Amino acid sequence: MRIIVDAFGGDNAPLEIIKGAAAAVAEYGHTVVLTGKEDEIRRVAADNHISLDGMEIIDCDDVISMEDAPRSILREHKNSSMAVGLKALSEGKGDAFVSAGSTGALLVGGTFIVKRIKGISRAALAALMPTDTGNPVMLLDAGANVDCRPKMLYQFARMGNIYMTDVIGGGKPARVGLLNVGTEDTKGGELQHETFELLKNTDRMNFVGNIEARQVLYGDVDVLVADGFAGNVLLKSIEGTAEVLMKKIKGVFLSNLLTKIAAVIVKPHLGKVKAMLSSEEHGGAPLLGLKKPVIKAHGNSKAGAVKNAIRVAAEFANAGVIEKIEAVVSEDATEDDE
Amino acid sequence: MRIIVDAFGGDNAPLEIIKGAAAAVAEYGHTVVLTGKEDEIRRVAADNHISLDGMEIIDCDDVISMEDAPRSILREHKNSSMAVGLKALSEGKGDAFVSAGSTGALLVGGTFIVKRIKGISRAALAALMPTDTGNPVMLLDAGANVDCRPKMLYQFARMGNIYMTDVIGGGKPARVGLLNVGTEDTKGGELQHETFELLKNTDRMNFVGNIEARQVLYGDVDVLVADGFAGNVLLKSIEGTAEVLMKKIKGVFLSNLLTKIAAVIVKPHLGKVKAMLSSEEHGGAPLLGLKKPVIKAHGNSKAGAVKNAIRVAAEFANAGVIEKIEAVVSEDATEDDE
Repeated sequence: MRIIVDAFGGDNAPLEIIKGAAAAVAEYGHTVVLTGKEDEIRRVAADNHISLDGMEIIDCDDVISMEDAPRSILREHKNSSMAVGLKALSEGKGDAFVSAGSTGALLVGGTFIVKRIKGISRAALAALMPTDTGNPVMLLDAGANVDCRPKMLYQFARMGNIYMTDVIGGGKPARVGLLNVGTEDTKGGELQHETFELLKNTDRMNFVGNIEARQVLYGDVDVLVADGFAGNVLLKSIEGTAEVLMKKIKGVFLSNLLTKIAAVIVKPHLGKVKAMLSSEEHGGAPLLGLKKPVIKAHGNSKAGAVKNAIRVAAEFANAGVIEKIEAVVSEDATEDDE
Repeated sequence: MRIIVDAFGGDNAPLEIIKGAAAAVAEYGHTVVLTGKEDEIRRVAADNHISLDGMEIIDCDDVISMEDAPRSILREHKNSSMAVGLKALSEGKGDAFVSAGSTGALLVGGTFIVKRIKGISRAALAALMPTDTGNPVMLLDAGANVDCRPKMLYQFARMGNIYMTDVIGGGKPARVGLLNVGTEDTKGGELQHETFELLKNTDRMNFVGNIEARQVLYGDVDVLVADGFAGNVLLKSIEGTAEVLMKKIKGVFLSNLLTKIAAVIVKPHLGKVKAMLSSEEHGGAPLLGLKKPVIKAHGNSKAGAVKNAIRVAAEFANAGVIEKIEAVVSEDATEDDE
């Protein structure tokens, strides 16, 4: 597999990206194609004794930042490491693309450079969230499309179903749920009512009904469908709550000498709880609905997360997901196409 | 103060409701008017040695359950403990009403029996959520209105601002935020864009801008405005995450003998973390926009939560919130009135 990686995307670029790429080459044997300023990549690699064996570089001198307007990737920043990577992907110079840069820019670039699958009205950001069972749940949309129509959510469900069944579930049919304010069939607003009908009346997936936000972490479903606004609120509330709670618990252990001793005892075990809630392990969020595999790594990704994102990208490319989405979605999506 | 309390609302009625009412009478000196089956109330009180001193009972033989359609409170269940309590409130037989029963029924009953303040297009469920700072944040709407227009969110902001400034903040102007997928002014969809403009262009409150779900528990704002769908997702994700995390941490302490010893040491401290996340302390969610104070207590309320809800109801009635909402909101709300 040849995985193209944006060497200048994210808070810890380029060092952690290069480190993660080197780890992926060593561990998985993939070829990594880095995009970005070649001389800086070579200098950082040399300074940090990172081997660039098994890597290629596509040199370009620009970077798109979090502050740049997403659409600037098409013009002002068309020579950025992200734009160049997406172009290389669209030209077949690699099997998948990974970036930890701006989600908005990646979505615009993915949509207009890599392009959507025919019949798909919107690409979805599909976040893999940890659950209590150890298996992840795929939330889509996680924030790329804040205003959604029922047909879009239906397509998100179809795409997430294919991904979770084929890439993660090893062929075991995924359970698909709709994020709602209650579990009864009639809950929610217009968007949920119409989407519920679409999902209930298809035999193309295993739709298990409405799911409340409270239940998501218990792992009752494998695919959770939501508009990007509610999906983003869900994702970020979970992150924020876990963050505040772990901080509070850390505070408890610093109370006095006895609690500090207790801390030493439970620390290795608490690490596992923290890891369960970490986005690092799952490595990245696939953008589903594009003609080629694109993975958004978390903006604060360090080498471990980058390595995992490269693994996820290769699995995505390998599973034939895009061909399957093309096959099953195109037939009922033409009316929403742009 | 005379507080009317639905003795048959919630999972633990009537025993925990009666207990909580007795505790409120003893601690705050309020008169409590219980609604529900009088003979059962007297029997349960006698069996559990609870004094009914300082309490009155309005006898009625029906109860509206979680399974009943919310609108049935107006017809089939118009003699339920909830409907009778709301009617008593509207007739001035008490200063406020508390129920731990069905949120939907309470909203319908509140809207059509107690009625909305002139100029208010929708009553909002205003949940008080704990934060890291120890001060609560008021989230409205927390799930009563899943489909919202910008003008509704603007009214929610005005009402929440009055409540948090006068009842909780002791006159210190509340900081009002809009729940959004990012902090930049242009984030969100149509609803957020239009609401942002309305809130930014008024000098009638201290609007501090967009707030991400991740930041809510840090207590950066006192009032958080959202449509009821996103608000409910926020509230329930926080509850669910805290629940799963505390369960995981409990599991850590059961790992082996040493961690069990550690558990004994930190247990009292962890209790404080748990209490911070508990809805019990804040006691209930005001329904804002009605002509009289109505408080929704959590469905699983025990005596302590009921007692707190009665305290909150009295504070609500005492602060003149409704008169202030009438004064400031009516002028710009007539066009949305039904």
